[in-house]
Amino acid sequence: MNISARNCLKGTIKSITRGPIMAEIVLDIGNGVQVTSVITAKAADNLGLKEGKEAYAVMKSTEVMIAVD
Amino acid sequence: MNISARNCLKGTIKSITRGPIMAEIVLDIGNGVQVTSVITAKAADNLGLKEGKEAYAVMKSTEVMIAVD
Amino acid sequence: MNISARNCLKGTIKSITRGPIMAEIVLDIGNGVQVTSVITAKAADNLGLKEGKEAYAVMKSTEVMIAVD
Amino acid sequence: MNISARNCLKGTIKSITRGPIMAEIVLDIGNGVQVTSVITAKAADNLGLKEGKEAYAVMKSTEVMIAVD
Amino acid sequence: MNISARNCLKGTIKSITRGPIMAEIVLDIGNGVQVTSVITAKAADNLGLKEGKEAYAVMKSTEVMIAVD
Amino acid sequence: MNISARNCLKGTIKSITRGPIMAEIVLDIGNGVQVTSVITAKAADNLGLKEGKEAYAVMKSTEVMIAVD
Repeated sequence: MNISARNCLKGTIKSITRGPIMAEIVLDIGNGVQVTSVITAKAADNLGLKEGKEAYAVMKSTEVMIAVD
Repeated sequence: MNISARNCLKGTIKSITRGPIMAEIVLDIGNGVQVTSVITAKAADNLGLKEGKEAYAVMKSTEVMIAVD
Repeated sequence: MNISARNCLKGTIKSITRGPIMAEIVLDIGNGVQVTSVITAKAADNLGLKEGKEAYAVMKSTEVMIAVD
Repeated sequence: MNISARNCLKGTIKSITRGPIMAEIVLDIGNGVQVTSVITAKAADNLGLKEGKEAYAVMKSTEVMIAVD
Repeated sequence: MNISARNCLKGTIKSITRGPIMAEIVLDIGNGVQVTSVITAKAADNLGLKEGKEAYAVMKSTEVMIAVD
Repeated sequence: MNISARNCLKGTIKSITRGPIMAEIVLDIGNGVQVTSVITAKAADNLGLKEGKEAYAVMKSTEVMIAVD
């Protein structure tokens, strides 16, 4: 399945913290950079996420803000 | 100013395409990886974005989805 | 690729309206119900969207609000 | 009150799972299709949501992604 | 219709700028404070928005970030 | 750091409710108006949020809907 979301960053799951409804996933995308994602706990279960497994951070372009120093 | 959005990826502005309301910004974040952002054209003007300039892609963790192969 | 977004509604593309940056896609999901999506024009091109083609509306659960009469 | 969000799907509340901050609402929108929503637990209380009650899933068009097989 | 979005700020429409797909609405919410909204141009038409008219800025709580100096 | 998000409302933190993953922050922005934000609990910790402290509610314009009576 191809999706309209235009950003996809490959990484390795570093940690998974489950709450009752939401779960926080930290992805290591290389060069010491981490991306934090909050998805539903059920989605984390459905995807079979596990520490050390490969995964992608996917973001719609309208959700990416730009900042400058 | 510190903000609650937890993801901040440093990059270089590769292209800016302006529409009447929105603008599309492509950021090169290194290793051949690009991040596409759509912000308002006025925000692009206010920030003084220019090709080749350093900028950051900022994403709230609830806007980062996870995908697996 | 499996994604954490938990909502996926199958439909047929009824119309595509392209602007310079964004495109509006109307999906007929059956029973006379339509879903309107706004994605980047480039994403619409990359996906090869065409009127009459099958497609899915995909929504993260945190983006679905609930209303009552 | 009329709102700019352009998508509104009528359904019946199938389940409500409350966490301390967020609540997950599953809506049956007919034909065996379900829509999952995550809203704040307080919003679920304020709206008086109950299983079996009619409700609407409301989504802004910029939050609806498009996918194709 | 009551909605789960928990933030609603009353204001007066100060300006409307229409693009082909999106429209930018500036709302004056009093005390010299303005709120900028980008919605679809069709939603702006459907709501009959006009400069000087009363309107509300509505935001889901998960879309409100917090910043500190 | 300047950011593309165009809305920034100054206020005072009225309450903080922490869940395991998310935290709900209520901001008093004056004139009896409150804004509710849900951010990650870790972001609330990192920002050092405390009741009575000054803070800003920051919203991207594409996340601000418009409603009329």
